[in-house]
Formats: sequence, C-alpha cells, structure tokens
Amino acid sequence: MRQSALFSATTRDVSSEETAVNAILLTKGGYVRKVSAGVYAYLPLGLRVIRKISDIVRRELDALPNTSEIQMTNLQPRELWQETGRWDDAGMREIMYRVGDEQAYGLGATHEEPVTDLFRQFFHSYRELPIATYQIATKFRGELRAKSGLMRGREFLMKDLYSFHLTPEDLDAYYEQVAAAYLRIYQAMGLKAIRTQASGGVFTTIPSDEFQVVTPVGEDTIYVNEAGDHALNEEIATQEEAAARGYTRTEKATEVGNIFHLETKYTAAMKAEIATADGARVTPVMGCYGLGISRVMGVLVELMGSLEQGAIRWPKSVAPFAVHLIDLTKDKVGEAVYQDLRAAGVDVLYDDRDLTAGAKFGDADLVGASVRVVVSPRSLEAGGAEVVPDWANHPERKEVITLGELATRLA
Amino acid sequence: MRQSALFSATTRDVSSEETAVNAILLTKGGYVRKVSAGVYAYLPLGLRVIRKISDIVRRELDALPNTSEIQMTNLQPRELWQETGRWDDAGMREIMYRVGDEQAYGLGATHEEPVTDLFRQFFHSYRELPIATYQIATKFRGELRAKSGLMRGREFLMKDLYSFHLTPEDLDAYYEQVAAAYLRIYQAMGLKAIRTQASGGVFTTIPSDEFQVVTPVGEDTIYVNEAGDHALNEEIATQEEAAARGYTRTEKATEVGNIFHLETKYTAAMKAEIATADGARVTPVMGCYGLGISRVMGVLVELMGSLEQGAIRWPKSVAPFAVHLIDLTKDKVGEAVYQDLRAAGVDVLYDDRDLTAGAKFGDADLVGASVRVVVSPRSLEAGGAEVVPDWANHPERKEVITLGELATRLA
Repeated sequence: MRQSALFSATTRDVSSEETAVNAILLTKGGYVRKVSAGVYAYLPLGLRVIRKISDIVRRELDALPNTSEIQMTNLQPRELWQETGRWDDAGMREIMYRVGDEQAYGLGATHEEPVTDLFRQFFHSYRELPIATYQIATKFRGELRAKSGLMRGREFLMKDLYSFHLTPEDLDAYYEQVAAAYLRIYQAMGLKAIRTQASGGVFTTIPSDEFQVVTPVGEDTIYVNEAGDHALNEEIATQEEAAARGYTRTEKATEVGNIFHLETKYTAAMKAEIATADGARVTPVMGCYGLGISRVMGVLVELMGSLEQGAIRWPKSVAPFAVHLIDLTKDKVGEAVYQDLRAAGVDVLYDDRDLTAGAKFGDADLVGASVRVVVSPRSLEAGGAEVVPDWANHPERKEVITLGELATRLA
Repeated sequence: MRQSALFSATTRDVSSEETAVNAILLTKGGYVRKVSAGVYAYLPLGLRVIRKISDIVRRELDALPNTSEIQMTNLQPRELWQETGRWDDAGMREIMYRVGDEQAYGLGATHEEPVTDLFRQFFHSYRELPIATYQIATKFRGELRAKSGLMRGREFLMKDLYSFHLTPEDLDAYYEQVAAAYLRIYQAMGLKAIRTQASGGVFTTIPSDEFQVVTPVGEDTIYVNEAGDHALNEEIATQEEAAARGYTRTEKATEVGNIFHLETKYTAAMKAEIATADGARVTPVMGCYGLGISRVMGVLVELMGSLEQGAIRWPKSVAPFAVHLIDLTKDKVGEAVYQDLRAAGVDVLYDDRDLTAGAKFGDADLVGASVRVVVSPRSLEAGGAEVVPDWANHPERKEVITLGELATRLA
C-alpha cells in the first residue's frame, strides 16, 4: 500500500505519560494511538502486525484435533455469571465492567461462563468428546493501574481456547499438544519462550504452565534450568528449592501465555453433564489456554525495538510489510516498481511521500520491513534499486538489483 | 475441516422467541447461538460466513484511493463525546451503554468522535488530504426492542468508513467511488441492491444514500424507477411525488448500507483544522459510510434460506465452505478423499460423523456449500463419488467423478 494513504503519522513527541518502550516506539511509528489509559486504537501498521500474529496463532490451533474457532460476545448476561458465583466475587467485581439497565450484562473480561454455556447446549454424548474451541477477541478489564503500554490494558486482544474432556488423562494429552503448539507459535514469531510451572490458582491443586520470555523489564521472576527450556515461577518455590531441583538460573521474565487445568469448576457449577457409553452421567473436565495477542505485540517491541535507534527490528513473520519501497526520486520512478511488486503479489509498502530522505529513512526504521528497497538517483546510476534483503539482522548488506528484475527476485 | 470438530450443533428446536427467518435458520444450522436479546455468538460456520463477507468488503475498500484499515476502541472517553454535545444527547443516551467508574466511557455505538480525534492528531496540511479510513468492528447499541435476528442487534459487526476532504467537490467524488464499490460488494455476494435516496438526518440538507434490497419482510418502503437501479425512500417523498419523478414501483425493502455527507458537523465541533496552500486554515468536510456485516449475513439468509426446506442456498462467495464432503461408508472411505482435497487447498468440510444419511443430508442443506460430494457404497459402485457441482442452483445436476480425480477437478 501507499504510505501516503496510511491513516496515521509518525511522531517525535510522545506524551510523557508513556513510559513503556513498547508504547513509546509504537506511538512514534504510528502503529497505535492511546485513547485512554490502557486503551489503544490500532492504526494500519499496528493492525497488520496484530493480524500476522493472529494468523500464526490460528495456523497452529486449527491443526489441533477437534478444535474450531468461534466468536463469543462481549455482552454477557449477569445470570450466567451468577451460576458460578463469580458475579459477586470481589476480584471479578473489580475487573469486570457492568453495563445496561440494572447491570444486565458484564462486559467480557474472560469467557469461561459463556463457553461452558455453549458447551452444555451443544454436547451431550461421550461420542462428541473431546471438543475444544477458541476465539481471538477483545477483552475488557477495569485494571486500576493500566500500564506497560500494550502489555496490560483495559481493552485488549486475546486468544482464548477452552477444551472439554471425559477424563483427566484425555485433558492432559490435549494440554500437552497445546503446550507444544504454543512453543511453535512463539518460535514462529522469533520469541524464545520458556515453559514455566506456576500456581494453578485458587481452585485447583494442579500447577498451571506459563510461557515466559526473559527480559530485564519482565514483571516476573523465574528460575530456569540448565537447558534453558523449563522454569519455575518464584510464586511456587524459593530460590533454594528451585536450585535443589536443578533450576539454578534466576531471571526477570514476562509472561506471553498461560495454560490451566480448570478441572470441573465451571462444568459442575453450570451442570454440563455428558452421558457415557454405559448410560452414566459424568461432569467433563476442562482446560483453558490464554495467549494475549496485543500483549505479544508489546513484548516483541520491548525485545526488538530500540529507543536510541528509533527502530523496530520485527521478525519477518510479523513485520507490518515484507518489503518497504522507498522512492527518493523527484519524478517517482518507484511508482512503476510498486505496480510491478503489487502485481507479483509482494506485501509492499511504497513510500510515495514528498519528504526528505532523512525523514523517510527515519520512518522506515520504525516500520521495520524485512526487505528495504531504495530507488534514488544514486541507485539508478548504479544500475537499479538498492536492496537490503534482511534489514533487521544485516542492515549493512546491500545489493543493486535492476528495476526489471525486482519483482521476480522479491516475489 | 472435520464436521465432528465443529463447536456447535444443528438443532430442530429453536426457541419460539426467534421469529425472524434468519435467526431460526442460522440457529438450526448451528451458525449462531442467541446469548441474550439481540446478542449472538458466532459459531464456526457463522464466523466463516462473516469472514468471507468481510473479505469481500475489504477487497473493494482497500482499492479506494487514500484508504486504509484501522481498529478503533470500544471504550470511548466521555470527554470526546462531550466535545460534540452527543454525550448528553437524548437519542445517544438511549443507545450508548456507559461503563466504568463515574461513567468514564461510552461503549462504541458509532465512531465519528474517535475517528475525528485521530484525524486531528495526525493530519494538518492540505498535502495530506483527502484521507479515509475504515474498520470492521463490533458495535454496541442499547436497542430497546432488539429483533429480526441478526438484522438489528445490541452487539453486532459493522464496517464503518470515514473520509476527510478539503472541499465538498472532493468529498462528492470520493462518495461516488464508495457508492460504486458498495454496488460491487453486494453483487459479489449475490445481492441486488438499489441505490436509494433517503433523508440526510438532522444536521445536513444533503440527502443520504441507502442501499436497499427488495424483500417482502423489509422494514422500509421504497419507490423504484423503471430500470430498477434507483429508488426513493418514502421518508423523503409521497407516492405521487415519486411517481411524477419516474419512481413508479412501490416495494418493501431492507437496508444493507447507508452513506452520508456529514459536512463539518464533527470536524468543526472538534476543531480539526487543515492549513491550505496559501496559509489559511479550513475545516475539512467529512463523509461516513456504513455497512452492517452481520446484518448482511441476516439479509442473505432471509433471501436465500427456506424454512420449509430447512436449507440455506448461499452464494458461492460467502458459503461457509466451498465443498461439503459427505461420507456414508462404514469404513470411512472419504478420509483419504478429505486428505487429498485439503492437500490441494480446497476449502472443504468433511462430514466424518457416525450419523444416518438422512441426518447428514439434512445438515448439509443448512451448510449450503456450493459443491456437494457424496462418497457412499452406491457412488463407489458407480465408479467414485457423486458430485453436485452447483447445489444451490442446480441440486439435480449430478456426476460421478473417480476418487483419484476429485482433488484435481475441485481445486
């Protein structure tokens, strides 16, 4: 697309309220704009990154057995939440917005009740289980102290997956498949996530698993093993206990996903029963699996962005565009190249604006496309366009490619 | 995908509260499930239709000049709405939910204020105009009488586009491009929409344009011209006046889109000024363009669904799946065919369930895939699979294709 058509602007002046690196860089680059504390609008570049992350998540989850995507609602009837007692729960009262006449609805802070309600309406026989479903949807949470930019907000995008099983063993098998899918998801986005044992919460003795990424700005402390592929959250062990179990390295880390055994907490409270082969009725066990899509975008910027350089070095898989075509000629020689690239199906952003080279390169560093193509009087003299094939990792490697060859080479 | 993996179920018993054909058929088919009056969860089939409609809309809007997609927020600060006076407007008070401590937010019922706020932050020079942006996003409206299934809800999916221009002439030119894009969008979905002049509302003397589809269940009355491509809404003319202007046919119709001149109502109230070439400052004029995504899904079912036949004859472009593979063999001969079709990139739903042929065909009529493929003992005896290439329009046309050829023929 044309850069002149983006409904956004890069900016040097970011409100001093923004202290998180991700919020500052994403605002500077015109990816997002803060609407209110913890509430961000996604501008064209930001929406493209969100969509690429979502597509990676979908690809892995759609490959899980008996798993399909749905879209639940944000208006959730009070009655559903009263069935599990969470409507009057102090913790939920704090984070769940209530709307409508006489507070008829809670605004989707999480979806265990609605998904269990759908489950009990659709599934009645052991033949139909296991079954699982996920959504990628907006969540609303009345966080008192919304902070950390996209990493903890009042309105944010999350993937939540729920599974239903006849036996704990069957749940365990699915749970492990999800854990493996999560690791592939993070790997595809260039994140090294460590599976980390953590507390299961108040209603189960089974620990949960977090996926943690090591970073100095992390809000969690974890103890990592020698191989660096498993860890314990400090909430479930002291440093000494962890070390005794082989978790010897202490790190700051940030959570990018969390998977839980819910046992029968919701299915029992909401009377979701399944008939077994021998005619008995059992209450299925349930797992839930969260992954914050907008949070992951924030984490990626924390790790791959640089305030000093004013740059975001996105991994190729989630960069807003694959190719950034920067036109520095007076007579827009790049226009024909842009048309060629589009015709060849290349995911290209064309900087067609009347700005100085300096301004264009400054913006390009914030766009962080994998391949940078510059068409300038100098590059034309050298025989074509100057191409940086892997800008994020090797900004110094350049080659000149003739304009005629560009589309074939980059397609 | 496998039909056994869908997180939904077809049902014969639909609550008698549902009176609209679209709600009854979509519930029967397992596309949606009512959560509360005017609030529907989208199940896998429904979400697929929504996504196909959205993609058609995106394809046309992305081709408009200076137009890009964003995602605004549903939490909208009260202060923005106070700037235009709509926070205390009686009509808006009725439909806009308020949330948060001391009603800090309105819940996105429409987005003129937030989009104008973004515009005034990003754009300051005549060089940057015209500029336009759209989103496909959830809207919340406290409709007192939510009815008509997906056609009028409290939580629904809408595409809203906004454009900003230096002059009314420039807005008019863009407006006509949008109108043409809308007609292409409806045509791509098999809808014959008629451009219909309607009232512009309270703050402009310029009429708006609705896109109306003729149907006996329509809530509007329109006067259509001889050619059948233009109409007047009865709200702006009597039958006699209309007839005198050549609009001689009276029809019931339902609105599937609406485009407006907003003039400077929002840009003036919110002080969005643009510097002109000669250093003056002007208030840009604005257009807005709505298209209800979930509403269109409802309209399609009203027109193409049949309660008597228990069938939805989707147009090919929006059917939840292109191909429905129905396996009636005991030993699941269809499994290998399914793998072949998937490998060939075919958008296929595989009915792998242990149900009677009658139950499977009944469900298939509600899925309404364009191509139906049946693998049964009888079809195998005849040499392969029985294929209905255009089930919606010619359910009687069938041919036998060998299993080995299927993937190549259907890819």
